[in-house]
Amino acid sequence: MDLKLTTGNSMPVQEGESILHALWRREIYLTASCGGKGTCGKCKVRLIEGKTDIHYYGKLTEADREKGLVLACSVFPRADVLVEIPEGSRLVVGQRIAVSGTTDLAEYLAPDKGIRPLVSSVDLTIPPPTLDDNISDMARLQRALDEAGIPDMRFSRDFTAYMGHALRDAGWDITLDYTDSDGAIFASPRGQKGRYGIAVDVGTTTVVVYLVDLADGKIVDMGLTYNSQMRWGDDVITRIVHATEGGGLEELRKAVVSDINSLINVLRKRHDIERNAVESASVSGNTTMSQLLWGLDPGTIREEPYIPTLNTYPLWRAQSARLKMNPLGPVYTLPSVASYVGGDIVSGVLASKMHRNPELALFMDIGTNGEIALGNNEWLVTAAASAGPCFEGSGIRHGMRATDGAIEKVKIDPVSYEPEVAVIGEAEPTGICGSGMIDAISDMFLTGILDQKGKFVEGLGTDRVIKGEESMEYVIHKNRGTAITLTEVDIENILRAKAAIYAGISLLVSEVGMSMTDIQRVYIAGGFGNYIDIERAVVLGMLPDLPVERFEFLGNTSVAGAYLTLLSDELRAEAEDIASKMTYIELSVSGRFMDEYMSAMFLPHTDLKRFPSVDKILRK
Amino acid sequence: MDLKLTTGNSMPVQEGESILHALWRREIYLTASCGGKGTCGKCKVRLIEGKTDIHYYGKLTEADREKGLVLACSVFPRADVLVEIPEGSRLVVGQRIAVSGTTDLAEYLAPDKGIRPLVSSVDLTIPPPTLDDNISDMARLQRALDEAGIPDMRFSRDFTAYMGHALRDAGWDITLDYTDSDGAIFASPRGQKGRYGIAVDVGTTTVVVYLVDLADGKIVDMGLTYNSQMRWGDDVITRIVHATEGGGLEELRKAVVSDINSLINVLRKRHDIERNAVESASVSGNTTMSQLLWGLDPGTIREEPYIPTLNTYPLWRAQSARLKMNPLGPVYTLPSVASYVGGDIVSGVLASKMHRNPELALFMDIGTNGEIALGNNEWLVTAAASAGPCFEGSGIRHGMRATDGAIEKVKIDPVSYEPEVAVIGEAEPTGICGSGMIDAISDMFLTGILDQKGKFVEGLGTDRVIKGEESMEYVIHKNRGTAITLTEVDIENILRAKAAIYAGISLLVSEVGMSMTDIQRVYIAGGFGNYIDIERAVVLGMLPDLPVERFEFLGNTSVAGAYLTLLSDELRAEAEDIASKMTYIELSVSGRFMDEYMSAMFLPHTDLKRFPSVDKILRK
Repeated sequence: MDLKLTTGNSMPVQEGESILHALWRREIYLTASCGGKGTCGKCKVRLIEGKTDIHYYGKLTEADREKGLVLACSVFPRADVLVEIPEGSRLVVGQRIAVSGTTDLAEYLAPDKGIRPLVSSVDLTIPPPTLDDNISDMARLQRALDEAGIPDMRFSRDFTAYMGHALRDAGWDITLDYTDSDGAIFASPRGQKGRYGIAVDVGTTTVVVYLVDLADGKIVDMGLTYNSQMRWGDDVITRIVHATEGGGLEELRKAVVSDINSLINVLRKRHDIERNAVESASVSGNTTMSQLLWGLDPGTIREEPYIPTLNTYPLWRAQSARLKMNPLGPVYTLPSVASYVGGDIVSGVLASKMHRNPELALFMDIGTNGEIALGNNEWLVTAAASAGPCFEGSGIRHGMRATDGAIEKVKIDPVSYEPEVAVIGEAEPTGICGSGMIDAISDMFLTGILDQKGKFVEGLGTDRVIKGEESMEYVIHKNRGTAITLTEVDIENILRAKAAIYAGISLLVSEVGMSMTDIQRVYIAGGFGNYIDIERAVVLGMLPDLPVERFEFLGNTSVAGAYLTLLSDELRAEAEDIASKMTYIELSVSGRFMDEYMSAMFLPHTDLKRFPSVDKILRK
Repeated sequence: MDLKLTTGNSMPVQEGESILHALWRREIYLTASCGGKGTCGKCKVRLIEGKTDIHYYGKLTEADREKGLVLACSVFPRADVLVEIPEGSRLVVGQRIAVSGTTDLAEYLAPDKGIRPLVSSVDLTIPPPTLDDNISDMARLQRALDEAGIPDMRFSRDFTAYMGHALRDAGWDITLDYTDSDGAIFASPRGQKGRYGIAVDVGTTTVVVYLVDLADGKIVDMGLTYNSQMRWGDDVITRIVHATEGGGLEELRKAVVSDINSLINVLRKRHDIERNAVESASVSGNTTMSQLLWGLDPGTIREEPYIPTLNTYPLWRAQSARLKMNPLGPVYTLPSVASYVGGDIVSGVLASKMHRNPELALFMDIGTNGEIALGNNEWLVTAAASAGPCFEGSGIRHGMRATDGAIEKVKIDPVSYEPEVAVIGEAEPTGICGSGMIDAISDMFLTGILDQKGKFVEGLGTDRVIKGEESMEYVIHKNRGTAITLTEVDIENILRAKAAIYAGISLLVSEVGMSMTDIQRVYIAGGFGNYIDIERAVVLGMLPDLPVERFEFLGNTSVAGAYLTLLSDELRAEAEDIASKMTYIELSVSGRFMDEYMSAMFLPHTDLKRFPSVDKILRK
C-alpha cells in the first residue's frame, strides 16, 4: 500500500509501519523530538483519506483533531492513505541554504592559519598497568599528558566515569580531546574517529543546524526547522512574557532544545555519526533566544533599564544546554551586545567583514526584529528598530512566511491596476510574504492606488480596490475561496515597520555625524532579505536611497557566524572584539527617534529630498 | 489511638496519619529516601498487631510480606497498633558518636589559622543597573569582583540561571560564595545566612553524616544509617561484582546516595536549614565506596593488577554526586592510596596525627575490611589484610553487628566452663558481635575448651560443648528459642580473619626492618574497635603482644578525617600529603605473607615467643 502526500509524492508503507517511519525511509523528516514515542506531540499530519489504525492522539487538542490532525508516529495505515504535512511539522534536511551571498565561508577561514576548533586533540600511547606500575587510571593518563607537555588536565566526573573503559577498549592507544578551560572531553581509539561540530542559528522563527567536519571545515549537511517556541508567540516580547510565567521558561527552553536535537539526531543518523563524535557547537541567536536556549530568565530584558543576564558567554558544556551531542563538548555562544542586539548581529558583522574594512558600511537584519549596525574597521554602532514580525507574515491578514504558496513578487499595471504575481513553488497562492508586500505597496503608491500617507485613493474605478470589513483593501489574487488582499490596516502595520527600520538607520547615521550618502555598502541579512527588490524597498522608504550596486544580500549570516566561530579561534576572538567594540544606542529612549519615526511613516518619507530617485519617478 | 513499638515506646497517632509520619513527629526517623512517597521501599516495619489501612506494598517482596513487613509510609492505623522497627530501617539522628577517643577535633584545627572551608566568601555592594549603566548582570557582578580584587570568576550555567534573581532579591547587596577552581556557587543577601557543610563517612556497612556550622566548626548534629548497598552483599568484593553487572553500578550508586540524602534531609529539616546553605561536603570512604558514590565502575579494583579509576579526586560539584545540598557546592573526597587502602585510612592517619610524630605508630581499622598503616612523621607504609566482615557478624552463624541484643562481652569460668555474658541494650540476646567473639574464643582457649589450632578438645564433660549439625559448638546462651553458639566453623572463620590482620602487621613491620616491639603506639579505629578487650585480642593473636597502655581507641576516624578536611585547607593538604607519602604493599602477591598467615592461624600463633604475655598465662 502507498502513502501519498498532497504535494504529489508517493511512497510505499508497510503493514504495521507508522506514517512517521514511512516518511523517514524517504528522508522526509518531521519534527519529532521524542523520537516517535508519541509523547512530544509534534509530528502532526493531516489525514485526508484512507483507512488507518490510530493508536493514540497524545497531546493533540480538540481543535487539532477537528482539523483532521493526527500524530504521524501513532497512525498505522491499513490501505492507501493521503496525507498533508503542515508547514510547521517538517524538518528540512540536506537542502543547502546559500550561506552567504558573496562570502565563501571556507575561503574566509585564513588558509594559512588552518582550522582551530573549540576542542584540541592529542595522541597518546600509554603503557598499560602492571603490578609494578599500578597507579590509578587517572594518574596514568595524567602522566602521559605530562610527557606530552600538557600538565594539569581537568577531569570531570562524567569523563572519569567512562575513562577506564575507553582507555582499555582503545588498548591504551588513544586520541584525547580536551579544552583548556574544561579539560578532558573524549578519549577514542587513536585515528579511528571523525570529529564533528555543529553550527546553530537559533532564530525567533527558524532554527538552522549545520553539521561540520572539523578535520576540513566542510559543511557535511544542514537542517532547518521552525522554532517550536512559536506556539507561545511570534516575537521575542511575547516569548519573554511567557518565560516569566510559571514554568514558561522551561517550556521555551525545552521547545528550542528539542528542535535543535531533532536536527542533530537526523543529521547524525543520516551520516552514521556517533553522538560522542559531535564534540563542539557554536550557537548564534538574538539575546533572548540565546538566554532561552540556556534556560536563563529573560525577564529583565523587557523592563527598563533592559538588562540581559549576560552578553559574553562562558564556554559551557553541551550537557548544560541538554544538547544531544557529546555531553562534555564545549558550546560557544556568540556574544550579545545588549538586550536587543544579540549574537546573531555580531555574527552578521563578522560574516560581512565590515569590521575589517575602512569603508562605511551598514548591516541590516530584517528578520523578526530589525537590527542594524553601522561602522567600519575603527568603530561600530548598533541599534534595534523593533520592526516587529510583519514581514514574516504576522499581523498581516493574508501574510505568511516565504514558503510554498506565498506571493513573493507583485507588479501592478499603472493603467488597469491589475496585478501580476509570482508565487513560491508555483502553487496556488495561499498568502503574501514580505517581499510581496514591499512590491505591492510600492507599486500601489507609484500607480496612485495609495497616497503618500498609505491611504487608499478613492474613485479609481477598479474592482481591485474594495471595501472590506474593517477598511479598504486591494485584491492581489482572486482565489477559488477567499481572495488574497492587502488592507489599509495591513499597510499601516507595514509602514510602521519600515518607518522603524528607516528611522533607526537615520538616527545611527546622524549620531556619528555622517549622512546616508556616506554609506558605501549595505549588507542585508536574513532569509527574507534575499528576496527583496531593492528599488521597491527604496520606494517604500524602508531602505536608504542609494545606488543599487551598494546593496549586497548575505543570506543567513547568523549561522554563518556560528560556522566561522566553530572552526577558528581567531574568528572567535574577532567576534568577541566586535561585540565589545559595538556601541549600542537605545532608540526607545531617544526623543529624536520618535521624530524620525513619525517622518518615516509616509511613502517613502515626508522629506522627499532624502529619496531623490523616488522623487524623480514621481515627477515623471 | 497509639502507636506502640516493641522497644516499649509509645506515641499518639492521628486519624489518617501514616506510621512513618507518627514516628517522624517523635523524631524517630526511618530510611525513606523517597520522602514517604512509597516508591523507595525502604521504610519497612513489622506490623505485629492492630487494625490498619494498608494503601500499598510498593517494592516489598513476597518473603517480606510473609514476615509481616509493611511500608511505614503506606500504613494508616485505625486503632492501637504494635510495630517493630527492624534494625536496617532506622536512621539514627542526633546521637552523638564519640568522634575520637583522645582527639578533640575542634582542638585539632589550629586555632591561630582559623577555619578555612572549601568555599570562600566575599561581601559585595553592587550599584544597581540604570539606563546609563546597563551592562549585563554578569558583567556587573564581575566588575564588583574586580574591584574586590577577585578577577576571572568562573560562572557556570546553573549559577548564571539564578544569579539575576538572587542579585535583585538581595537588593544588590550580597555575599558571594565561590571556589577558586569552579567559581561562583551561591549569592545570598549579605549577612543573612548560616553556612553549613557536611562530613560524610561512607562505610561498607554504615553511613555517617555530620552537619557542621562552617562559621565556628561546631558539629550541629549527626546522623547514621546502614549502607543500603548491603542488600547486594556485605563486603566490597560482592559489591564490585554487582557493579559490573548490567545496571548494578547505578543501583549501588543510587542506594548510597539516597542514604546520605536521607540523612541530609532530616538534619536540614531538624535545624531549618535551606538546601543551598549546605554548600560544601567532605567524603571519606574506602576506594570502592568512594568510586561507587561517584558512580565510577570499580571493576578493575578486583582484577589483577588491581587498579582504581583514580586515587586523588578533583573537587567535583555536589550535583555530580547528586547530593541534595547546594548543587554547585564542592565535594572534597579524601584521597585513596590504592585499590584496597582508601580515603578512610588516610582519614584515620590524619585523625591519629601519627604522620606528625616521630614515634613509630600502627594504625588499624578493623571494620568490614582490615586495613593497617605503619609509620611516623618521615614515612608510612600500608596494606589491606582482607579480614572479611566476620567481626561485623557476617559468615558467623549467630553473628550480628554491635547493636541491641548483641552479646558484646563473654567470660568463661575455667572450672565449670559456664559463660557470663554482657548484652548491648540489656535486652534478651539475639546474637554475638565482634568483641564478644574475641572474648569467647580467647577464653575458650585459655580454659582449654579449644586447642591451639582452634579445635574443640574432646571429653570435657560439659553440656556447653555440643555436637552441632556441621561441627562442634560452644553454647554461649540458651535462648528461649534456639541457642546462641559458636561453631568450630565460625571459629575457623574468625581465626582466618585475625590471622590475616596479624600477618599483615607482621609483614609491614618486617618490610621496614623493624620488630613488633618497636611499635610505640597502636591506634584502633572503627566502630567495632571501641569495644575490643585488648588483652583478649592479644590472646586471640589478632593484636601484637604489646603493653596495654600503648593501645588507643579512636572511634570513627573516617568521619573525623572528613570533618577535619571540611574545615581546613591545611588539613586537606596534609591528607593529600599522607596519601602520596604512603607506600602500599600488596599482600596478596607476597609469598612471605602466606607464610606469616599460616603461622598466625593458631591460638595465638605457632611461635609463642611472639606472644610472651600469653605464653606466661599458659605456663600458669
